[in-house]
Amino acid sequence: MCELLGMNANVPTDIRFSFKGLVCRGGKTGPHADGWGIAFYDEKGCRTFHDPKPSAHSEIALFLQDHSIKSRMVVSHIRRANRGRVALENTHPFSRELWGRQWTFAHNGLLRGIKKFPLKFYQPIGTTDSEWAFCWMLDQIRSKWKDTPPPLQLARVIAKLSARLRKLGIFNLLMSDGRCLYCFCSTDLAWITRKAPFGSATLIDEDVTVDFSKETEPRDVVSIVATRPLTSNENWNVLKHGELAAFKNGKLTYSIPTD
Amino acid sequence: MCELLGMNANVPTDIRFSFKGLVCRGGKTGPHADGWGIAFYDEKGCRTFHDPKPSAHSEIALFLQDHSIKSRMVVSHIRRANRGRVALENTHPFSRELWGRQWTFAHNGLLRGIKKFPLKFYQPIGTTDSEWAFCWMLDQIRSKWKDTPPPLQLARVIAKLSARLRKLGIFNLLMSDGRCLYCFCSTDLAWITRKAPFGSATLIDEDVTVDFSKETEPRDVVSIVATRPLTSNENWNVLKHGELAAFKNGKLTYSIPTD
Repeated sequence: MCELLGMNANVPTDIRFSFKGLVCRGGKTGPHADGWGIAFYDEKGCRTFHDPKPSAHSEIALFLQDHSIKSRMVVSHIRRANRGRVALENTHPFSRELWGRQWTFAHNGLLRGIKKFPLKFYQPIGTTDSEWAFCWMLDQIRSKWKDTPPPLQLARVIAKLSARLRKLGIFNLLMSDGRCLYCFCSTDLAWITRKAPFGSATLIDEDVTVDFSKETEPRDVVSIVATRPLTSNENWNVLKHGELAAFKNGKLTYSIPTD
Repeated sequence: MCELLGMNANVPTDIRFSFKGLVCRGGKTGPHADGWGIAFYDEKGCRTFHDPKPSAHSEIALFLQDHSIKSRMVVSHIRRANRGRVALENTHPFSRELWGRQWTFAHNGLLRGIKKFPLKFYQPIGTTDSEWAFCWMLDQIRSKWKDTPPPLQLARVIAKLSARLRKLGIFNLLMSDGRCLYCFCSTDLAWITRKAPFGSATLIDEDVTVDFSKETEPRDVVSIVATRPLTSNENWNVLKHGELAAFKNGKLTYSIPTD
């Protein structure tokens, strides 16, 4: 299986503290050593970094821990391969363009029989269940609208498609078009929103504490979503099984149950 | 305008020597200071790095000069903005998936009236002429075949589409699906193939010399394509105006005149 990390904020924000906790689980405090990837949106643009090496020992992951790339939307993933060999093309997050926006997708789980789902417009480049599911979801979304629909309508369709995929096994999802972070919980997904008054937080996986009151402005609002809580001294919310949560401008905006 | 750099090789090869020459032209020995990007294929996977900062001063560009990423296919670009503001989404190379392959595209030039060309499947994310032209080309290619056609047929269509775009202004192109490097010369594009017996080469833009005989095996074949020659002591070939050159396994495979 794998671990997911997402961030959505109302101002460009440094994700290095959370990323440091995640990458430890890629070969040091956790077994997710089959590659990792991260996508940072900058307005409509998106920077991605992928490496099939374990994140705990990856030179690019070390570089990103030393250099701040501020972003309002981040999707990251560390991989423990089940279907699909360890290779760059099987490393999440996957990306495709739809309606002039770059969509990114990261998945934790296993989907039995997904490759029987027909694909039309988007084709997978690698051999993972996950990328096939992404192509299928985007095909379905694309076929419903010619251009970006109102956000709640889109969230409802993503919830419905996610619920259908969940029937094939386990489908914990982070997906974004740069404006909204869609998070579907099949078995494990936790989140926290940090806002004023900011306190300090301590990583579970590494002996690191950050005092957010020194790093932020009073109006900053930042939500972090992860497979398991990343800090030991904060109260993380746990998504319900079958729940889709959508974050925008740093806040939980929609919560859609599908059970 | 901009500068292009492409590499195609029969074995995974380190491009840092040529990349070092290129990035100098992004704000140091040349004026192309409005961002840069590079795509490294690894089999079907593709790693990309983009930065809207000048390449000569970019931390990611410095990282890539210190860390070897070997690849058989590389497409790189340094930008001097004409149409489209300096922004991550306007930074080449652009990428889209077609037939389960990641295609990358980098352009040097200016295309008057390109935004009147209708688009169907692919939409631009940024506002450059170049990305619009890429979307239009892929639309045209996609509409002709359901799956990857024989290479010569594909090269002929890319040549024909390039010749049509060239009529709008200047269209120097590097494009790849990871298997073949397509290079169209509208005004400026030079190339060199290095193979045994390897010699040494000296950069024009930086006081650096490499003895390739120490870095290579006898069977290695590597072609480099660039807007202007990058070395001072080698004989670069200059593509004819209107010529499409396609490189595969390190060698020039097709040369198609369109004039």
